[in-house]
Parts: sequence; C-alpha cells; structure tokens
Amino acid sequence: MNGYFDYNATTPLLPVAQEAWIEASAKHWYNASGLYREGGFTNRKLNEARERLGELLGCEAERIVFTSGATESNNALFYSLAQLAKPESTVLSSAIEHPSVREPLRSHFANRIEHLVTLPSGQVDLDSLAEKLKTPHRALVTMMAANNECGALQPWREMLALCKSMDIPFHTDASQWIGKLPAHELGECDYITGSGHKFGGPKGVGFLVMKEETETLHFMRGGPQEGGRRAGTENYPSVEAMVTALECLTPQLDNIAANQTNYRQQFIAALRKEWSEVRVIAEQGECLWNTIMFVTPRQDNRKWLARLSQRGFQVSNGSACSALKDGSSTVLAALGASVEEMRQVLRVSGGWNTELSDWMALADAMKDVLNDFDAS
Amino acid sequence: MNGYFDYNATTPLLPVAQEAWIEASAKHWYNASGLYREGGFTNRKLNEARERLGELLGCEAERIVFTSGATESNNALFYSLAQLAKPESTVLSSAIEHPSVREPLRSHFANRIEHLVTLPSGQVDLDSLAEKLKTPHRALVTMMAANNECGALQPWREMLALCKSMDIPFHTDASQWIGKLPAHELGECDYITGSGHKFGGPKGVGFLVMKEETETLHFMRGGPQEGGRRAGTENYPSVEAMVTALECLTPQLDNIAANQTNYRQQFIAALRKEWSEVRVIAEQGECLWNTIMFVTPRQDNRKWLARLSQRGFQVSNGSACSALKDGSSTVLAALGASVEEMRQVLRVSGGWNTELSDWMALADAMKDVLNDFDAS
Repeated sequence: MNGYFDYNATTPLLPVAQEAWIEASAKHWYNASGLYREGGFTNRKLNEARERLGELLGCEAERIVFTSGATESNNALFYSLAQLAKPESTVLSSAIEHPSVREPLRSHFANRIEHLVTLPSGQVDLDSLAEKLKTPHRALVTMMAANNECGALQPWREMLALCKSMDIPFHTDASQWIGKLPAHELGECDYITGSGHKFGGPKGVGFLVMKEETETLHFMRGGPQEGGRRAGTENYPSVEAMVTALECLTPQLDNIAANQTNYRQQFIAALRKEWSEVRVIAEQGECLWNTIMFVTPRQDNRKWLARLSQRGFQVSNGSACSALKDGSSTVLAALGASVEEMRQVLRVSGGWNTELSDWMALADAMKDVLNDFDAS
Repeated sequence: MNGYFDYNATTPLLPVAQEAWIEASAKHWYNASGLYREGGFTNRKLNEARERLGELLGCEAERIVFTSGATESNNALFYSLAQLAKPESTVLSSAIEHPSVREPLRSHFANRIEHLVTLPSGQVDLDSLAEKLKTPHRALVTMMAANNECGALQPWREMLALCKSMDIPFHTDASQWIGKLPAHELGECDYITGSGHKFGGPKGVGFLVMKEETETLHFMRGGPQEGGRRAGTENYPSVEAMVTALECLTPQLDNIAANQTNYRQQFIAALRKEWSEVRVIAEQGECLWNTIMFVTPRQDNRKWLARLSQRGFQVSNGSACSALKDGSSTVLAALGASVEEMRQVLRVSGGWNTELSDWMALADAMKDVLNDFDAS
C-alpha cells in the first residue's frame, strides 16, 4: 500500500531521476565553467538539459535560468523586477499564492500589491483582472497556475491573453502544475517558476523562465554562471535528474489524469457515503487530479494527521510551507473557509502511481479514525 | 593517473557522500516540515546533520543555516546585514575575495566598502586592519579564510581577535579552507560560509553560520524553514551527503596535509629544474597544501589549458567563477601579478588522493607542452 498523500509537499525521487543524478555525478561532476574538455562537456550537457526543458515548457532554452528551487526563482524574480520598476508601479496578485510568492512580493513591493478577487470555485475572477488592468503602471501580474492547497486550476491562459493585450508582463508560479498537467503551453507566459522535487526530481533544484533571453537577473550575485543571471557553481547532476523526471512523466500525463480524476471522484464519493455533509473546498471549479482539500466532520486537523499517521497515511493540514505558523489562514480565508473550518481542514494529494485501492484505504482509515473519536 | 588539478573549482563526489545521498533520497525524502511521523523523522535527521556539522565547525548547531551553496550564503548575509546596518556604517574586506563575496558586497554596501592591504605574501596586512578598525561605524569585517586563486591562508584568527576586541562582527568565507584544513576553530568566527562541493559533497548545498542562534536572515523569503531564516523545502539528502563528506575527510587531514605539502614542494622543484625563473604567486606566505598559482614561461594561459587538457590534465587559469570575464584581474593585481603575467598564470589545485606520481606527470606534461610551443 502507498499511504503517502502529500505529493503537493514533496515527491519521492523517480528511479530514472535517481539514475540520472548518479550517472551525472559520476561522469559530469566537473565544473561547467572549467576551460578544459571535461568542463566543456559538462557545460554542453547542462545546455542540452536546458534545451530539453525548453522543449517541455514550450519556450526557448535561453530563457531558462536554473536555480535552487521555486522559492529562489520567485525571490529572484521579484527582487530583480522591483529594482527596475518605477516607484509608482504596482503588482497584481492573488490572496491564495504560496508563501514563496507572497513573502518576497510583500518585501520588495510592500504596499504596491493589489489582490484579484478569488471566487468560491477557487479561481481568480477574470472580470476583476480586466478591471484592475485598466489602472496604469502595472509592473507585473503574478498568479499561480494551480493552487497548492485546494488544487484549483487558475485561468492563466486567459489572464496571459489579457495581460498581453495590455502589454503587462505575466508571471506564473507553476510549481504545482508542472509534472501533473501538460506544460508545453506555459512557455507563452513571460515568467515561469518551477521546482524539481514537486515532480519526482531531486530537492534543491528548480528554474525560472525569463521573458527575454537577454534579460538580466540580479539576485544571486557572484560568478558569471547562467549567462550572468545566477551565480554559483552549476548543479548539473540535479538539473539532469529534474529534466529526466519531467521527461518521464510528460507522455504519461493524459492517461494518469484520466485514471486519477476517476479515483479522486470515488474517494470523494466514499467520504460522502460516510458523511453526506463533507465540504470540499473549491469543489465547483477545475482542479488538479491529485488534490482534495476538505473539512473533516469533527476534531482538530492535527489530531487527524496524527491518527492517520499512526495508520500509515501521510496527509497535510495545508501547505508544509505554512503548516508551522498561522500564515495559512489568509489563503484558506480567500478560499472561503471559516475560522472554524480552518482548524478542521485536511489536504490530501496523491501521486502518479497512487492506486484506487490506496485512495479507498485512506477513506477506510478516515472512517476508522472517526469511530475512534466518537468512541473516546 | 588522476590528471584532475582543479579541486579548487569543484571536487568529485566522495563515495560515502554518494551513498549517503542515495540512502537519504530513498528513505528520508519526506518533507521535513510534514506533520506526520516520516516528516518528523526527516526533520530529526536534518537536525542531527546540523549537530554533526556544528561539531566539525566548533559551533552551536542552531547557528547553522543550510543553503544552496557558498554563493547563496554570502548573498544572504550581506543582503540581511545591509538592511540592518546604519547608513553611515562601512565594511572592511579585501581585494582578493571571491566574486560571490565581492559582487553582493558591492551591490548592498556600494561605496561603503574599504579594502585591507594585501601583502606580497598573499596575506592581508594585520597592521592595516588594526589601523582601519579605529574608524567608527564598521558594520563588518569580511575576509576569506584561504584564497581560491593562490591558496594563501589568511590570518583569520588574528583578525577575529582584533575584531572581537573592538566588538565588530567578523565573517569568513571558508569555502576553500573547510575540508582541507581543520575547521573546528572556525566556529569562533561570527559568520562562516561553506559549500559542500568544495570538499567531496554534492553541488547545490552549503551553509551559513550565523552569529546568534536567534538572528534573522531575510534573503530567501517564503515558508518558515530553517527557523524562518531560509525558505524553501529542506534538501536533507544533499545536507546529509555534505556533512558525511566532511566527516570522512576531517580525521585524515593531518596526514593528507603532511604528504601533500611535500608533493607540492616536489612539483615546484620539478618546475624549477626546468625553468629556474618560474614565479609562484604569493610563494612566501602560508598556503593551502593543494594549490599553486604560477606564471608560465611562455604563451597565453588558455593555450596551456588546451594543451594540458589534450594530455589529460585539468588545470585552471584562475577561479572558474571569473574565468569567463576579466574580473579575475583585480584579484591577481592585488596578489602582485603584472598585466603581462595575468595572461600567463596557471592555477593548479590537487586533491586528497592526488599521488606524487600525478604531480610529477603534470610537471612532465608541462615540459612537453613547452617543447611543443618552442618547436612551433
């Protein structure tokens, strides 16, 4: 049984990614900036990986900057854009962004951030975007592609089109989208953030796609790596493993999505059979095939986590990135959860190989935990 | 034969580090912030690794923040200190720092940086430090522990003592020191930077030791990881591999240093036998046991690199971090190289397992290349 239901927090390393990392570490550990043959070869392999990722994302390889992960990508982008932005310019974002977007944005744009309205479906309101884009001096619109908590897919294509028509750059943190849904259209966005460990790659590696091949980035300063856009010795083994993971998953996605959407529905049905009133957050909107956030019928969600953990199931009470502090509440509030509900919310996120039997076992375990609560 | 003589740029992954990474990735890939048992276990392993590194560096584990490498550590420190520093405060540094110190320092402290004098021995002048510390409003003194280009060891213990007496914080980028020389006294410094791949660990992981356990760091913003000091999913597999590598090397260092210091001398003697006039940069001062920077008798250093590469030897014309632009010249100028010499300089840096026969083979290859040049 696979009782792991926290794939939105992190994923196990795919075997092909592990192999790629080991091979790259054994053969191509040389410094990609070294001027001898082996250094040049590492550099070529790194740039081949860049080409392959560009292919998967539908963008020119030269726009891709490899980073240590999505958090760095987001920090680097907002830091750099803030330095170039006019003092009167503002950023449009949403109240349901991941902390790695929210926090650097708040730091670098302070009180120059406006939020789009989030609908009960979990999607941002396109009408509010159209309206807000009319205000002059918008430096950027940044909106996640898929929400990490409830899985709501965002209308990034429509947002991008609106932004393009107004000549305003559009960034999407696609950390939860990439590896779960086809990514080849994302390259149309001006800026894209992604993280390897969210799709079977290693931790500590990610990327930022820039608008222009020649655009500068000033966050990580030092040596001239990544075309002067990201200092620090190139981590080719992890880049290779990350790209290999995405290449492995991409052709399977249609199949997986079809099966898993079905499993997800059956899981919700199994919950409802037990508790007809179970409330799924943002249920009406389009959603990732792997994610369900719902309000448990009784008790504090930490108690649920502990009891499910004892039974071999790993779930979450919200993003691991905000699980340790109260920060998650603003996201849940924007998603329409009451203060009472926030304490009873669980996030369940399955993976590519999660079986229907795993989902059903989780539903059974929940029933079991509930019986425990009722008995005690 | 091991023809790799660019260990100061990067090192191959030690077998124990590879094993540690593979095992950690297989067993403890769970998110360290996850509230289930497996997440807690990853978190415990991560903090055990922090304790073990604290032991090696002679500092409290809680002072250690894991990062993506030395470049991030340096950027994070200077960014954060600049935010807290008074506008009139200044930083003391040197002209021979690595670009990952020099560039963020220039960015965040702009024209508020003063350089200590570098002596012909490659060491900074302690008298100039004592003198310059008298000026009020020094926010920080930052000085590398060992120079990456010529290998010169810096008098960081004496500098630290002077700084302590004046109550001025002292930072050392110890990237080239750690793993080559005993590190357990470094913990006395207020801030320490290190990078795993410089001592047989993986790329993409490093650390910053902070002055205080409770001191904040604001560079990588987002989730509350690393005690709120460094957002981003914890990269436990790479941390484990890095710490394992350093644990493996540390007990061997005295032995290695004794042997390699001898090999290094024999290599210099072999060069001198051929060319009595060969000039070793910063020869008179104390030096890393693995590093020699010298002026070749004829031809451009890129030609040397290419010819040696053809013969299976990997050497450098200076730090890979500045090999692609002219930035290295300020460092070499401070080390006393003329503009003419800069084009003829080679850096040779051996490793823990480099044999005397490897060093001699390199000397022979150099003789061979020189004959080629003379013949053509």
